[in-house]
Amino acid sequence: MTMKAIQKPSAEAGFKLIDTDKPSIGPDDVLIKVSTASICGTDLHITEWDQWSASRIKPPLVYGHEFCGIIDEVGANVADYHVGDYVSAEMHLPCRTCYQCMTGHFHICENCKIFGIDLDGCFAEFVKIPQWQLVKIPKSIPPEYGACLDSLGNAVHALSKGNVSGKSVLITGCGPVGLFAIRVAQALGATRVFASDISPYRLEMAKKAGATQVVDATQVTVSDEVKQLTRGRGADVVLEMSGSPIAIKDAFKALRLAGTIVLFGICASPVELNLNEDIIFKEARIIGCNGREIFQTWYLMLQLLESGKLDIDFIITHKFPLEDFGQALDLIASGNSGKVILTP
Amino acid sequence: MTMKAIQKPSAEAGFKLIDTDKPSIGPDDVLIKVSTASICGTDLHITEWDQWSASRIKPPLVYGHEFCGIIDEVGANVADYHVGDYVSAEMHLPCRTCYQCMTGHFHICENCKIFGIDLDGCFAEFVKIPQWQLVKIPKSIPPEYGACLDSLGNAVHALSKGNVSGKSVLITGCGPVGLFAIRVAQALGATRVFASDISPYRLEMAKKAGATQVVDATQVTVSDEVKQLTRGRGADVVLEMSGSPIAIKDAFKALRLAGTIVLFGICASPVELNLNEDIIFKEARIIGCNGREIFQTWYLMLQLLESGKLDIDFIITHKFPLEDFGQALDLIASGNSGKVILTP
Amino acid sequence: MTMKAIQKPSAEAGFKLIDTDKPSIGPDDVLIKVSTASICGTDLHITEWDQWSASRIKPPLVYGHEFCGIIDEVGANVADYHVGDYVSAEMHLPCRTCYQCMTGHFHICENCKIFGIDLDGCFAEFVKIPQWQLVKIPKSIPPEYGACLDSLGNAVHALSKGNVSGKSVLITGCGPVGLFAIRVAQALGATRVFASDISPYRLEMAKKAGATQVVDATQVTVSDEVKQLTRGRGADVVLEMSGSPIAIKDAFKALRLAGTIVLFGICASPVELNLNEDIIFKEARIIGCNGREIFQTWYLMLQLLESGKLDIDFIITHKFPLEDFGQALDLIASGNSGKVILTP
Amino acid sequence: MTMKAIQKPSAEAGFKLIDTDKPSIGPDDVLIKVSTASICGTDLHITEWDQWSASRIKPPLVYGHEFCGIIDEVGANVADYHVGDYVSAEMHLPCRTCYQCMTGHFHICENCKIFGIDLDGCFAEFVKIPQWQLVKIPKSIPPEYGACLDSLGNAVHALSKGNVSGKSVLITGCGPVGLFAIRVAQALGATRVFASDISPYRLEMAKKAGATQVVDATQVTVSDEVKQLTRGRGADVVLEMSGSPIAIKDAFKALRLAGTIVLFGICASPVELNLNEDIIFKEARIIGCNGREIFQTWYLMLQLLESGKLDIDFIITHKFPLEDFGQALDLIASGNSGKVILTP
Repeated sequence: MTMKAIQKPSAEAGFKLIDTDKPSIGPDDVLIKVSTASICGTDLHITEWDQWSASRIKPPLVYGHEFCGIIDEVGANVADYHVGDYVSAEMHLPCRTCYQCMTGHFHICENCKIFGIDLDGCFAEFVKIPQWQLVKIPKSIPPEYGACLDSLGNAVHALSKGNVSGKSVLITGCGPVGLFAIRVAQALGATRVFASDISPYRLEMAKKAGATQVVDATQVTVSDEVKQLTRGRGADVVLEMSGSPIAIKDAFKALRLAGTIVLFGICASPVELNLNEDIIFKEARIIGCNGREIFQTWYLMLQLLESGKLDIDFIITHKFPLEDFGQALDLIASGNSGKVILTP
Repeated sequence: MTMKAIQKPSAEAGFKLIDTDKPSIGPDDVLIKVSTASICGTDLHITEWDQWSASRIKPPLVYGHEFCGIIDEVGANVADYHVGDYVSAEMHLPCRTCYQCMTGHFHICENCKIFGIDLDGCFAEFVKIPQWQLVKIPKSIPPEYGACLDSLGNAVHALSKGNVSGKSVLITGCGPVGLFAIRVAQALGATRVFASDISPYRLEMAKKAGATQVVDATQVTVSDEVKQLTRGRGADVVLEMSGSPIAIKDAFKALRLAGTIVLFGICASPVELNLNEDIIFKEARIIGCNGREIFQTWYLMLQLLESGKLDIDFIITHKFPLEDFGQALDLIASGNSGKVILTP
Repeated sequence: MTMKAIQKPSAEAGFKLIDTDKPSIGPDDVLIKVSTASICGTDLHITEWDQWSASRIKPPLVYGHEFCGIIDEVGANVADYHVGDYVSAEMHLPCRTCYQCMTGHFHICENCKIFGIDLDGCFAEFVKIPQWQLVKIPKSIPPEYGACLDSLGNAVHALSKGNVSGKSVLITGCGPVGLFAIRVAQALGATRVFASDISPYRLEMAKKAGATQVVDATQVTVSDEVKQLTRGRGADVVLEMSGSPIAIKDAFKALRLAGTIVLFGICASPVELNLNEDIIFKEARIIGCNGREIFQTWYLMLQLLESGKLDIDFIITHKFPLEDFGQALDLIASGNSGKVILTP
Repeated sequence: MTMKAIQKPSAEAGFKLIDTDKPSIGPDDVLIKVSTASICGTDLHITEWDQWSASRIKPPLVYGHEFCGIIDEVGANVADYHVGDYVSAEMHLPCRTCYQCMTGHFHICENCKIFGIDLDGCFAEFVKIPQWQLVKIPKSIPPEYGACLDSLGNAVHALSKGNVSGKSVLITGCGPVGLFAIRVAQALGATRVFASDISPYRLEMAKKAGATQVVDATQVTVSDEVKQLTRGRGADVVLEMSGSPIAIKDAFKALRLAGTIVLFGICASPVELNLNEDIIFKEARIIGCNGREIFQTWYLMLQLLESGKLDIDFIITHKFPLEDFGQALDLIASGNSGKVILTP
């Protein structure tokens, strides 16, 4: 039996909508019929075949790594999941034997593989996933939300590391993960959430997300604005989600003494820091953040969604059938979208 | 110059409304004109002259330890506070030289004295306080709230220790501190807040506070109810605020594996615990909680109030002039009140 | 092919040395030739067929759950372990799908099974273990130590939870895990280690372990002694490893304000605590402790052993061939032994 | 009555040995007869009148900020200290009213003044100190050690933040604080301590301190060496105490995934970091460290010294009478000394 899928056919720019065999599963796998998938910035890079993609991806590859769906078939060893279960999956596949995996840090496994990057992914009618990667999703969470759990999880993970309850938070960078972070920060008890960006569309979205104050970095120096909003003290916590060296250097200035900055946004280039003023004298804490904790982040995220404290409807701005993947990519490239959902 | 005050005149039940000299201040003191004060259960015990009071209080004493006001006079060494400043004060006076004080635990000072218990308190037109005990209050916080910061602080402190962000919380006992705790838990990012009590009045107040679910412990076993509300898992965090041995024993059962229980309510008698089932096998964490951190709790509380995330209006059910202290006490003794405010 | 093993043949007191088939392994299992095994108090209970054993054990069962050995055969899916590897294993088998397992608390899995209790164990020439339970042991660690890693791990886990670096520690109860704990506390940077027991043999062993001060609880009140040794302050951390209600009640008194008590010893009966004095007013922290973290504890333990900071030679007092299991049990029952090693 | 003192008389290089009036004390002060003092790199900068000194110091000033002594006189309000008490003092004077002071971070006070820099210091026969700055020293700690508590405290503070118990530690930079750190790391339970520097004298001192492995950064790349020593994993914790941009960049490479790096050494210039590789992907934690916690660090330090776990004799290489301050400075400038003690 065949299925539709979005494939990177060869080592060059572009993609192909193909008909291909449904994956056959092993004893520890499940086959999932994809309900919805979501497009990440990485998928744009893969399509454009940038330097990173060229160095990592081995075509042919079905890509896509954000989705949810219904279990269609289960392997012989699978006891806790059943046909018909509504699930999503952690697409970072840990080796489970390296030091990091053995000590509870699966999400920074030394030998991590990623579905949709190193292994066939979810831009398809069906996707094959090992049972240990699955997360059951409560019915009360709609499939459009289910497709966003990977990137929403990035925001939840970053916020957990920042420990924002009862604190003022600055989020620098309002791409999808930054926008999620605004809502998650509120849900986790941040007292005030300041959000900065340089794009009018994203600043508008940040307002919709409910940021206490939106700061246009093309008009003011963000750290000055944040200090003014905090009686000169600075933000208790900063979440850096822009990856922009200029924003990062200024983010350190916006942080209060003894504050915490979580670095999440990937930087295009190294960043020069004044360690004395920015870190040492103020006893700042800098925390690197990668992926999602497996599965602490997922359970926290589901608890937030189920409780009704976290609503992410505002961020889902567009939906396309899988066949219109090209159009969806163009939209994302324009910068004028929130999360874009595909339905196979 | 004289002032009105509520005094415990001698070692027996009762109180006296007196005219007395305005306190004269030393070089490190300020004199505060009391705007509002609030009555605590302790004030009822002192009036009734229970066993604890008889063993600790040395009459004559002006009592009361929850208030806010305006600075009327400052001592010679006082540089950071000025006549006209709007302040409240931490009424636990640490010695500042014991091991606890020297290592940042002022609130569990080995030689702690308390204004309104060991030293003259705030049920008066004026109160004298050493400058190191003061906290400036932003104008946006009304004096009725200002009178509640001591007991609101108990709730904020207990919640901080519980680390409730993103967690389900059970609060056992809905007296004033328990009621505050419901609101504070929501503000600090608890996903769901269950609240139990045996008094219909308090359960009604808990609903007004916005508890996700109110549990009447006269009708059901609280732990059963909480397990049903959490798919059998139990609450992530329990705040014990009843002091009832029955409630406490059940609270341990309501706690999930690896959960945290914060003990705040003073118990009338020792409690028999099954350490194996209640603590060891489930790797529970039990945290004792006393007073408020000096001044971490205060600053967190003010940040919550100022941000608008925390509103405590619902709990202030009655106001009396200082002269009607007796009536106010009767009301509190009836159990049918929230916080009761006095205005001198 | 057959092998020798110690078996509980039927639901009554006693054991049997049997010849039985070598276990046959599945694709995710390894077969390990047991080098050394060690006897735990639990094995005595199983032999004596106490109430707990009768309620849990389903004979026939090969018991024993502390061992190390050499891999003899690997299943088809096993890639990271090889014939000849020197290994031990975590004998608590987590389900890997419950909430605790999914959130990094494998060691308090809701559906945990234990080799040697629920499944055939290691008192045999060969034992079959799933690959996910294995830990590779460096060659520098002798097989006698390798047999002790399960109970040494209990001590390491308890100490980790107590966070003893730079602190004074009281260990109540000097059975094997308590004795290990003395050494581990020193290795992890405790400044002083006080150890109490009621058995002369164990107090002597505690001295050999290097306790700063050994306290004979038949002669003095332990809390009095500890206070005297700490200028009246009490111990910073207490590890409760006796399970004795008298010791536990006194342990709370020996703890300083804002101290931490880790409960590990299983109690024969409930314990009545004065929550006000013992926990609330002093802001004590009580932490339940069970098993070993999978595998954080194991890696920490190996790092301590390999560094040379932790030496456990003193505790291994006797060795027997597997055939003399009965004699070994008698010795343990007498209370006059440290760890007793079996060699199949 | 007059006393000898080392003074910066005017805004230019040099110092002067003067006779001056003994300080007169206020009601909250004590006057201390200095037993021993110790010279810090800062004292060299002040003498040489570098850019930093010129911008901060207001001559005339008696400098020196590391000492211990005997109380000679107490102010009217001083109840807890007495003539004859053996004390040292925290020389960072917090304002006690800023946000940092009010929330337990006295050591990063926004308005901090330092004795010996902003106020007259301890290179004198007598020094005046407010009572809130004092720490009583047990008699078992000799005055030579008492003079080192300020810089030893830096090491203890940095190590506390690094949480090194049971971990491998790399210390980059073996000046006096780095050398102390080697010993403190061992005392606090580090399993292995690697130490790097470029000076043969300091590397030799690091060996004397008992580093597990000393790494000469002029001969090898430190991160390569550390990886080889840790099976490719990297150090669990890094303490950066060199202030050298080259060492710092390499220190990030020497850190393992999910490791912690404490930054203490002041950098001469900004440092360019690859945030992706050095922090984000590996989820590193960077912690700025300044001064000493007031007084948590002091009590931890005294507990380590008193327990006998920490011996600092090896580092005290030279002693001079106060009159030979010039000679002592020359020695320090040569780089070939440990701590240099002055006796007034």
